[in-house]
Amino acid sequence: MQSNVPQKITIHEVVLRDGIQSEKKLVSTKEKVTLTNDLIKCGIRRIELSSFVNPRLVPQMADTDELWGTIDRKKGIVYAALILSEKGLDRAIQCKVPHVGIYVSASETHSRKNSNMSVAEAVKEARRLISKARGAGMEVRAGVMNAFGCAYEGNVASGRVLTLVRDFMKREPDEICLADTSGMANPLQVKKTVKRVQDIVGAVPISLHLHNTRGLGLANVWAAVTEGIAIFDTSLGGLGGCPFIPGARGNIATEDTVNMLHESGIKTGIDLDKLIDTSLCFEQYMGQTFPAAVLHLRPSS
Amino acid sequence: MQSNVPQKITIHEVVLRDGIQSEKKLVSTKEKVTLTNDLIKCGIRRIELSSFVNPRLVPQMADTDELWGTIDRKKGIVYAALILSEKGLDRAIQCKVPHVGIYVSASETHSRKNSNMSVAEAVKEARRLISKARGAGMEVRAGVMNAFGCAYEGNVASGRVLTLVRDFMKREPDEICLADTSGMANPLQVKKTVKRVQDIVGAVPISLHLHNTRGLGLANVWAAVTEGIAIFDTSLGGLGGCPFIPGARGNIATEDTVNMLHESGIKTGIDLDKLIDTSLCFEQYMGQTFPAAVLHLRPSS
Repeated sequence: MQSNVPQKITIHEVVLRDGIQSEKKLVSTKEKVTLTNDLIKCGIRRIELSSFVNPRLVPQMADTDELWGTIDRKKGIVYAALILSEKGLDRAIQCKVPHVGIYVSASETHSRKNSNMSVAEAVKEARRLISKARGAGMEVRAGVMNAFGCAYEGNVASGRVLTLVRDFMKREPDEICLADTSGMANPLQVKKTVKRVQDIVGAVPISLHLHNTRGLGLANVWAAVTEGIAIFDTSLGGLGGCPFIPGARGNIATEDTVNMLHESGIKTGIDLDKLIDTSLCFEQYMGQTFPAAVLHLRPSS
Repeated sequence: MQSNVPQKITIHEVVLRDGIQSEKKLVSTKEKVTLTNDLIKCGIRRIELSSFVNPRLVPQMADTDELWGTIDRKKGIVYAALILSEKGLDRAIQCKVPHVGIYVSASETHSRKNSNMSVAEAVKEARRLISKARGAGMEVRAGVMNAFGCAYEGNVASGRVLTLVRDFMKREPDEICLADTSGMANPLQVKKTVKRVQDIVGAVPISLHLHNTRGLGLANVWAAVTEGIAIFDTSLGGLGGCPFIPGARGNIATEDTVNMLHESGIKTGIDLDKLIDTSLCFEQYMGQTFPAAVLHLRPSS
């Protein structure tokens, strides 16, 4: 009945990057290391540790180079980082980061506001960065930000997404990522866009980075799963999201995504009970209630 | 591509019944009337006004008979109520209620705890009530509670759901409803169960009553929509849910459901902007923040 549904799905955990990047409370390097190792004990196999960004712009990432020096890299685990500039890539090469994400926005306005470059300029820069990263032996995820809509521009024509993906493919990335940066995707759009991107990329894996801003995160995951998508970015507790929109939710929660997949008979390799324990501990450290739905269902909590 | 997806979906609004039934703050009859009329102005065409239940058990429903006497019934609007006993049905007949919901639980434990009857006894009682309601000229929705799982028993075999549906069909109900009373459904299960129930009921419409306890509400709506389901119970603001589970969310929010459907190109006949205004007003009346995701995204809020 569900012939396209993958038997196993890979969770790409982003709590230490997208999850905490806008949080006022600074997470210590020690806590980042502990959380990373705890998540791996839960069965997480891919984890985004940081972005290489100017610490003045994102204070939470000030210890990035130290963190990469401290972390004990375990076999079989993909440790990843987000790259925003050549300077950042050079730091990542220094830190021997094995997996980097390099993104271009599909929205002209967002591209200029976020990177001070037009989309055309950002594409040119991304080409250079992808080639340099591959030359340094890194695995590269090439991503499209605002692939499903833009907070500034509204709709984003899927043609713009496909053009970017075609361009990326010439640089032979290891993975193509479609990011719903503003949480504007809907399930029908996800289905349609994913199908078109699959036609372009062939056997190269596609990952989705979805937000839950309008409560559609898991509906979008499900729509993508039925099209065979097998890599999803998720954030522990559902942490993340835009601090400028009151009440806006952030990334899709790792717990809720894993629960939905397991309940639907799809494997993730993750121990959900352990994951909830880990999330409850980190929730206490952060001193706030995380939005993940399955986190607070235990009778004792 | 989405051949089963209906072009238009009917929202069955349950905020005045399931939404507020466990709320401590009592909603005045006047406020209930105002909210009903405001919801109709938003384009809602089906609204569940109350349950006919012992007021000592559910104080929020103490004004049920008065409410039905007060409400100005507009043409083309389906005003509905939940029936739990013959005494309740007699009151509903007195109140000239045009549409009633009569339910049996698919879980033995829940049936005994909720109605003090075994499933077999509850089926026998439901048969009588359905016949009596139809005899009184009412439209009847026959529903299965805990159709996707039970908080007490865990999994509920779909065979038990199908047996109940087959039994109901002998009484020629106008609609079959599957209720995820404990919020335990997952999208794959919804798809499978809906297909099997469709095989039994033929042209009789199927409605789904879904909860968002584990954050899967809209994913389950989407899975059902792709199988052609065109009637969904939703609650304004996402109000409702179990007061005994801390952090548990309630019914799927009308705003979020309507937003997802509209974004996916499916019509509901509802003005989302007006609906959000109505929800924000009622939120203020209730003195709490509703869980609906799209409710708090406006820059000014």
